[in-house]
Order: sequence, then C-alpha cells, then structure tokens
Amino acid sequence: MPSQAILDVRTRGPGLYEFTQEAAHFVAQSGRDSGLLTLFVQHTSCSLLVQENADPDVRRDLVEFFGRLVPSLHSPSMQWVAHRTEGEDDMPAHIKAALTSVSLSIPVLDGRLALGQWQGIYLFEHRDGSHLRRVAAHVGP
Amino acid sequence: MPSQAILDVRTRGPGLYEFTQEAAHFVAQSGRDSGLLTLFVQHTSCSLLVQENADPDVRRDLVEFFGRLVPSLHSPSMQWVAHRTEGEDDMPAHIKAALTSVSLSIPVLDGRLALGQWQGIYLFEHRDGSHLRRVAAHVGP
Amino acid sequence: MPSQAILDVRTRGPGLYEFTQEAAHFVAQSGRDSGLLTLFVQHTSCSLLVQENADPDVRRDLVEFFGRLVPSLHSPSMQWVAHRTEGEDDMPAHIKAALTSVSLSIPVLDGRLALGQWQGIYLFEHRDGSHLRRVAAHVGP
Repeated sequence: MPSQAILDVRTRGPGLYEFTQEAAHFVAQSGRDSGLLTLFVQHTSCSLLVQENADPDVRRDLVEFFGRLVPSLHSPSMQWVAHRTEGEDDMPAHIKAALTSVSLSIPVLDGRLALGQWQGIYLFEHRDGSHLRRVAAHVGP
Repeated sequence: MPSQAILDVRTRGPGLYEFTQEAAHFVAQSGRDSGLLTLFVQHTSCSLLVQENADPDVRRDLVEFFGRLVPSLHSPSMQWVAHRTEGEDDMPAHIKAALTSVSLSIPVLDGRLALGQWQGIYLFEHRDGSHLRRVAAHVGP
Repeated sequence: MPSQAILDVRTRGPGLYEFTQEAAHFVAQSGRDSGLLTLFVQHTSCSLLVQENADPDVRRDLVEFFGRLVPSLHSPSMQWVAHRTEGEDDMPAHIKAALTSVSLSIPVLDGRLALGQWQGIYLFEHRDGSHLRRVAAHVGP
C-alpha cells in the first residue's frame, strides 16, 4: 500500500516557498526504508522546483529571471496575450508553470530523501496575492 | 503487477491536445484505488503538459508564447541553428520539448487521478503537419 | 523491493552527456520485466533531459539556445543578478536547471526502457569546468 497525503503550502506573492521538512516528515511517517516520493501540484499557476537552499539570492534571482522572461500583461511585449479576464498576473503565471514542473519524483534511500547536500524542495508561486496551494504526495515502493 | 499501455494522440500542428479522459480510463481499467500514474512521451519534438482546461485562450497563449520564445528557423534571430535537415520547425520543436516535460506523474487517490479542479492533461505538439504521438502509461502502487 | 543505485556522470563543461546505457544496465540488473525507472539528479546547476540521439547538432543547438536565453554574468543583460559569489557561470546554471528537469520517469515494458526510437537519456551540464555528477536511480513496480 502506498502512503498518500495532501500537503498545504501558503504563499504571499511570487517566490520560492520551501517545504522540504513537510515532505521529509511525510516520508518518515510512511515507514519506508526504500521507495519513491512523488509530489504533484494541483494548480496551473504555480509549480514545483528543487533548487539551492544555501544563498537566498539564488531564489530571488530565479524569481527575477522568470519575471523578466514572462513579464506582467502591463508590459508592451505582452500585448498579444488573449487570456486577460483573471488579472495581469494570471496568464504569465500559466506560462511560468509550463516552463517549470507540475510533478517531481525523489528516491527514498535508507529511510531518507535522496536530496543532494544543497537541494531543497520548493513551491514556486507565480501569482500575486495570497494563496493556499495543495500538493498531492505519494510514497510507493 | 503494474498496468501498462501505449496511449495514442493524433495531432495536426502546434497546439495542446487534451487526453485526460484516455488517461483516466486507463487508470480506471487498472482497478487501483490508490497508486501513481506516470506518463512518458516517446518523442523529442512534442511534450507533456498539465494546464488549465477552462478558457481555451490559455492554450492558444501558451502556444503563442513558445512560438515567440523559439521562432521558426526563418526568423533572423535563429540563424545560428545548425540542425536544419529535418525542416524549419524541427529544431525549434526540440528546444520547446526541452523547456517543458517528457514525463509526468500524478497520484491516484480513492480511485481517481488527483488532478486539481481546472487541470487537464495535454500533449503539447511543437511540429507542423500531422503526427501520431505515442505516450507510454504506467500505473503502479 | 525496489532496486536503487547512484549513477555517476563525469562532465567537462556545458553539454549533453548521454548515460542511456548505464540506465539500461541498471534496469536490466533489477530483473524487472515491467516497472518504472525514475532518475533524480542530486545537483542544482545541471539537469536531466531526454533528447534526440541521432544528429549531434541537435545537442549543440540545445546548449547554444540555453546559453543565449541565459547568458553568462558578463553579459550586459544579466547585470541585475545578485548571486555572484560562485562564479560567472553559477547563477545561469541554476536558471537553466529550473527551466529543464531534476527528475524523469520512464516505464519499463517487456524488460526494456520504453524509450522512443530516437530518444537518449542525457545529463545536461550547465557549468564550466569538470564535475562528477550523481544521479539517484530507482526501479519500482
């Protein structure tokens, strides 16, 4: 039998929100010594990212890069966008989600997530405002 | 024992082709109440995407964005490209595939795919012309 | 019981380093006729890619595209970057990793990886210099 749960991540505007601890706790509770953790985000305007958990500038620079590659609909370079009914930040958020990941899988070795030394697990929020984001988590053999 | 199948998706030029129903049907046939669906596309010039299934403008805008980020080899900004033997649309298609996903994993909870309310599963076609695309599907514990 | 291993990939600067054979060998050793291979790279400045293994120009063009989209910190267009302590190539490498994949899952059908005819598995190195990269591999049911 797999172990399954919904992990909640609260966000307050664009940024990387770490939930490595919550994921590790879910894996520990499954009691598996070896297995595979899969995370799936149930939204289309945020995404999942494994990135460096050392220098916080890395996370700020990632947010800045994506904001420059896919600017808000106010930008002259985005006047071609048709989907405008859900706000200036919505269609850029869908595009940023398409450029990153909706699901991630990480092996569990010797009872621990096989993350590298500097890797953390993040919810990458692309929208303004406050959101409660849901991540479906699964640990299987 | 896992359940496995090849799902066929027919495409007619760049766009997002939904196959959520086919994936859900495959999961239902597996008889699993809890598990993990993995999809893997067996091509390098199209990809997989989970995106909004409400406003069709979202899909059109996604195609438009990727077409602007990675234009056809006719474009002056793409004169550096070396791989030109398979047509004007081939190397841009490989790049768009690299920017999106070759595989996706979605938990199965209570016999159903754990998709969010507005999420659909799409084959993202990056090439012109008509293609029959194959997606390897796997449901495991 | 899943089969698990760490696969080593040695790199010498930006490029796509194929390790399809090593992954296939690991799957063969697992003895599974049907299952799922998952690969997870334990670094944040390189990534995983399934791409065309026919014309080597495709790999060179992919590297060139990502180098143009995310140039070195010497470039005038990258003066906004804050994270500069680990070298001119480090923050661009984190961004390129975010735009591609940290994990991949490929079904095993009839004892073989369900790769398409022209698909190879690559470690996409984004940093200069020589590196020993580690990929956690998992085969489960």
